[in-house]
Amino acid sequence: MAKHADASPDDPIREAATVRATAADVLVRLRARTPRVHCITNTVAQAFTANVLLAAGAVPSMTLDAGEIAGFVASADALLVNLGTCDGERRAAIAIAVSEAAAHRRPWVLDPVMVERSPPRLEFARALIGRAPMLVRLNTAEFAALNAGAADLGDAARRWRSVVALTGAGDRVCDGVRSLTLTNGHALMAKVTAMGCAASALAAAALAVETDVFRAACGALAIFGVAGERAAALSHGPGTFAAHFLDVLSALTPEDLHAAARVNP
Amino acid sequence: MAKHADASPDDPIREAATVRATAADVLVRLRARTPRVHCITNTVAQAFTANVLLAAGAVPSMTLDAGEIAGFVASADALLVNLGTCDGERRAAIAIAVSEAAAHRRPWVLDPVMVERSPPRLEFARALIGRAPMLVRLNTAEFAALNAGAADLGDAARRWRSVVALTGAGDRVCDGVRSLTLTNGHALMAKVTAMGCAASALAAAALAVETDVFRAACGALAIFGVAGERAAALSHGPGTFAAHFLDVLSALTPEDLHAAARVNP
Amino acid sequence: MAKHADASPDDPIREAATVRATAADVLVRLRARTPRVHCITNTVAQAFTANVLLAAGAVPSMTLDAGEIAGFVASADALLVNLGTCDGERRAAIAIAVSEAAAHRRPWVLDPVMVERSPPRLEFARALIGRAPMLVRLNTAEFAALNAGAADLGDAARRWRSVVALTGAGDRVCDGVRSLTLTNGHALMAKVTAMGCAASALAAAALAVETDVFRAACGALAIFGVAGERAAALSHGPGTFAAHFLDVLSALTPEDLHAAARVNP
Repeated sequence: MAKHADASPDDPIREAATVRATAADVLVRLRARTPRVHCITNTVAQAFTANVLLAAGAVPSMTLDAGEIAGFVASADALLVNLGTCDGERRAAIAIAVSEAAAHRRPWVLDPVMVERSPPRLEFARALIGRAPMLVRLNTAEFAALNAGAADLGDAARRWRSVVALTGAGDRVCDGVRSLTLTNGHALMAKVTAMGCAASALAAAALAVETDVFRAACGALAIFGVAGERAAALSHGPGTFAAHFLDVLSALTPEDLHAAARVNP
Repeated sequence: MAKHADASPDDPIREAATVRATAADVLVRLRARTPRVHCITNTVAQAFTANVLLAAGAVPSMTLDAGEIAGFVASADALLVNLGTCDGERRAAIAIAVSEAAAHRRPWVLDPVMVERSPPRLEFARALIGRAPMLVRLNTAEFAALNAGAADLGDAARRWRSVVALTGAGDRVCDGVRSLTLTNGHALMAKVTAMGCAASALAAAALAVETDVFRAACGALAIFGVAGERAAALSHGPGTFAAHFLDVLSALTPEDLHAAARVNP
Repeated sequence: MAKHADASPDDPIREAATVRATAADVLVRLRARTPRVHCITNTVAQAFTANVLLAAGAVPSMTLDAGEIAGFVASADALLVNLGTCDGERRAAIAIAVSEAAAHRRPWVLDPVMVERSPPRLEFARALIGRAPMLVRLNTAEFAALNAGAADLGDAARRWRSVVALTGAGDRVCDGVRSLTLTNGHALMAKVTAMGCAASALAAAALAVETDVFRAACGALAIFGVAGERAAALSHGPGTFAAHFLDVLSALTPEDLHAAARVNP
């Protein structure tokens, strides 16, 4: 079960306010501590993901080699496991990386990309969920594929012993006790490849600087969504949006988050 | 031989007008039907290709794993086979994907990148042409390497049983009976990596929504070229061009194509 | 030892002036001769590296396949060996490529990315330095890891028989006799992934058009730094910076370099 010693399921309004404050804190800490996130991610998303982490204040590393990855993960501050363009090399790297993260108590995030399209990938994702990632970020189709038996997000979070972040037009985050909805963001975010993958990477970075996994996940998604809607206002389509998104994320202030983050019970 | 029941080789002017209308229809259908294109493409081109497909209204998938690719191709609406950064994993994926496309009657496009530089890649491309891709899109050097024996584009199209699109300063498309030249585009398109690769991906998407392969190929290249010249007018060089290209493609209307597409016998 | 028949260690001020002129010459020659640089580089950096080479006037190729790479390197004008996301396929490709470059007297550049994080990568980089790359471009952490025994840059250059370019807030280039500092550039360059990787690729392109390795390296870094600071002046953050960087690099003139390059003893 995710850590939430001071979780307040009975006071979701107070929790929403706390999450807004956490988002601002996460941003400040990312820039002060520049955590390194080791990313096992798909080749389509690597460059944009690296640029999102850099814009937020974190540092990416992305090697996959079986002979090198243990050292990279052991010295990283968080781990992202993204199943896009998964292949034998990535599966081998993930097995080592997840064990290394457990051994060194590094937080890790699972992004089970497109599991609904591939039975072997779905099976692999289920095995990884059995290793209790701190956070699973996914979309509706991926959640439906993984969660055949569970009634809802809270049920999945409890069974998986993970915080679950279901993202889409609105984002719903649940740790089995607390649950909140974040409604920042913009439709253009669905027209740029790797936005979801990069959100998962930013969540991993947030876990490196905030031990309350639920609040870290909410905070990362709030940062991502606020940056997205501000960038959309500057853009004329998905191409300029991607560039403005990195600019806005890089310039975002804690005050921006306090003013603009929409977090609701 | 490509399907063209109503091909009108004796009336190239009428065919050019039909192709302009098809380009507009393809654009509308891409946005309405959001076909998924499974792309086996080089690592350099993956992100830009994905963003071009998204901007046009289609959906990319890009996994290569031998254990997963059959399912991805079987459930896709079209397949792109691009030979850039080809390696053992990609060759194995291509063999499975092409068989799967044939079994499920999915249209597929071959982009024989840089075959003129590599004898084993040239041999592999020849074997793939033997599997009768619906469309082969290539540049002059690639065509010369592949086509040692043939007199011209029409000869190659007939022998290969494929529509052939030879792109460059102008694009020439031929199905063995019909042939047209498209002259939209801009010199900046040659200064951005993966533009040709992305054009092939867009052509694959067009094949998913238009059964006349010749017209689908011409339509995709018209869309691509019109977007390119509009984006160039907004740009100060290849960096801003790439961003504007995605914006323009995303906002392009059927009326834009009717007004701007230059299709000639 | 790097070629520098007319090296003038006793007259560093004259050498600095010569290097500014060489930077301008390199730019002119890249556009006139369009050398092809074969890049073995990490998957994160591939697309941006290709776009930087194209913007500068060079042509990229990036295949890694063991069966193809010899031909690609033999027909290229220069080779880049970048150790990011290094894996078995890349190590095999590098072994072939370096031998092929030696056999055909092609210049090659080593970029030992993140060797400080991985003992096997460090050992591999040391073995490659034993093959005497014409240029090694690295940052301070990488230099410290590789150079445990050497007193300074000049010592390393002499022992490695390579020009060494140590880049950071300022760039220091040394061939064991001559040494210069370049101080163009902007802090935004550290917030975009693959900037250093792309600088190494541009240096490889410069080696294809200038036989004095020290001056070619200085020239490439001057071009890169001047483009960086001009792009920063047009940008609002790392996203728009990356696009403007390509625009500015593409439009840079020899006069710009004469006016703006800061090269000091």
